Amino acid sequence: MNNNLSEQYNEMNNFISTLQDKITLELADIDGTRFNEDKWERPGGGGGRTRVIENGNIFEKGGVNISSVFGDLPDAAAKQLNVKPGFFGACGISIVIHPFSPKIPTIHMNVRYFETEEGKSWFGGGIDLTPYYPIEEDFIFFHSKMKNACEPVIPGSYNDYKKNCDEYFTVKHREEMRGIGGIFYDYLEGSEIKHFELVKSTGNSFLEAYLPIVLKRKDETFTDTDKKFQLHRRGRYVEFNLVYDRGTLFGLKTGGRIESILMSLPPVVNFNYSPEFKEESPYALMNNYYQPKNWI
Amino acid sequence: MNNNLSEQYNEMNNFISTLQDKITLELADIDGTRFNEDKWERPGGGGGRTRVIENGNIFEKGGVNISSVFGDLPDAAAKQLNVKPGFFGACGISIVIHPFSPKIPTIHMNVRYFETEEGKSWFGGGIDLTPYYPIEEDFIFFHSKMKNACEPVIPGSYNDYKKNCDEYFTVKHREEMRGIGGIFYDYLEGSEIKHFELVKSTGNSFLEAYLPIVLKRKDETFTDTDKKFQLHRRGRYVEFNLVYDRGTLFGLKTGGRIESILMSLPPVVNFNYSPEFKEESPYALMNNYYQPKNWI
Repeated sequence: MNNNLSEQYNEMNNFISTLQDKITLELADIDGTRFNEDKWERPGGGGGRTRVIENGNIFEKGGVNISSVFGDLPDAAAKQLNVKPGFFGACGISIVIHPFSPKIPTIHMNVRYFETEEGKSWFGGGIDLTPYYPIEEDFIFFHSKMKNACEPVIPGSYNDYKKNCDEYFTVKHREEMRGIGGIFYDYLEGSEIKHFELVKSTGNSFLEAYLPIVLKRKDETFTDTDKKFQLHRRGRYVEFNLVYDRGTLFGLKTGGRIESILMSLPPVVNFNYSPEFKEESPYALMNNYYQPKNWI
Repeated sequence: MNNNLSEQYNEMNNFISTLQDKITLELADIDGTRFNEDKWERPGGGGGRTRVIENGNIFEKGGVNISSVFGDLPDAAAKQLNVKPGFFGACGISIVIHPFSPKIPTIHMNVRYFETEEGKSWFGGGIDLTPYYPIEEDFIFFHSKMKNACEPVIPGSYNDYKKNCDEYFTVKHREEMRGIGGIFYDYLEGSEIKHFELVKSTGNSFLEAYLPIVLKRKDETFTDTDKKFQLHRRGRYVEFNLVYDRGTLFGLKTGGRIESILMSLPPVVNFNYSPEFKEESPYALMNNYYQPKNWI
């Protein structure tokens, strides 16, 4: 670690490191396969630990990545972030899990912290779910866990962060969400302790919001058409991540580690010309759910 | 057609309409399947004719689309194009063909014309090839056809347009081209007749540059690993089109017809975390070719 980094930075860094261990252990245990680890260093300072699972028994592709980078903030980044150039530190954990089964949703989580020499600092993060089959009880369960992650820390915040999430994870040219949302927040002042608490609470809610769904659905059968619909919707996931996701585009355009950034992309994807799914089908029903909706 | 459109516009429009007929006829004939046609209208004026082939015998997915749109130029578009708001007309043909066999390259062609009320007009276009197997004789053949398309019309232009193409079709974050290039030009003054001639020559060279390769390779066998490499490289095609392609992003963000724009995306794609292909393999050799190279 670098001496210029704050105590809060170091605490956040410890938090994400411990969380990565816990989450990869649990996911590997359920899957019966293991994650492969790549450690990488950033020439300007810091680095990361990327852990990827591929072709597991349940998880077709997934990444649980942490990074902690610091040094001189590049001018372009300073400009985009509206801060003075100088020393900066940024750390976070990013998770994307793509299961084989269309009955188990894709999940994404990220929490992050950023601080600059001039004393500015922010937290950001969130969790969102991308299901491919309309199992409403799972969606309600997931959102209730998200509410539980927010409300005890910042009463009344779930509705705001849910709304942020609905808006952020929208494929704008289609006016449709990539999934069913969750919570999302950004630029929360680092000086407020409740924001750090929120980030911890978000991180800690990942396993309790996702594992029960995985366990419940992992042995359910699915049809070829269920799978086709999943591959089709994964195309929308790609559209969102490559056209709109700020983190992805910022990372790619500022020399981030490409493999770690793009681990978010689904392993197998279909892009069909106007695919057709019957009107009276689970898929038509699922399509209706890619719009903002109160799940609780 | 609209009375405000120039004679040159109408001539270009006839050219692309005839070319679409010719190309879809020939491709359907070789494939033994047919294209499906969707006609669409643009609320503000004009429309298009999208012809798509899916799950053919040779072609897994392909589109040969024309569009002719006109009316009041949206402010955002006027600003981006640096022209005065007012009446505009734009027409063009776009082709993307993704064959099943990794021995047959993906090909892309586009020629287009744009004019404004204040009397400005431009031509743009090009053809580029994205192979997945290192068959150098095909690459040389293709580039020689591209040279033949340019040189008789504008002597000395092939080198410039080839360089443009190498630069344009680069996945910048990877410092690698999506394919082996071809020719690409943009903002060629509409008032110069040679530019219209170049556009016609480009359009007319499509079949003679592509069909011989298709015919030569269509019955060649390929391995599972050949196919895997193709699916992996198709991922790079998606990365380029969604992160960098100006036409795609402009279309998506200004309310273009999504299905017609995204017909360019490959039907089945893999995104693996650092896929490995043996060093002494055709794939390693092919990887070397995704860099600017003189083929003639």
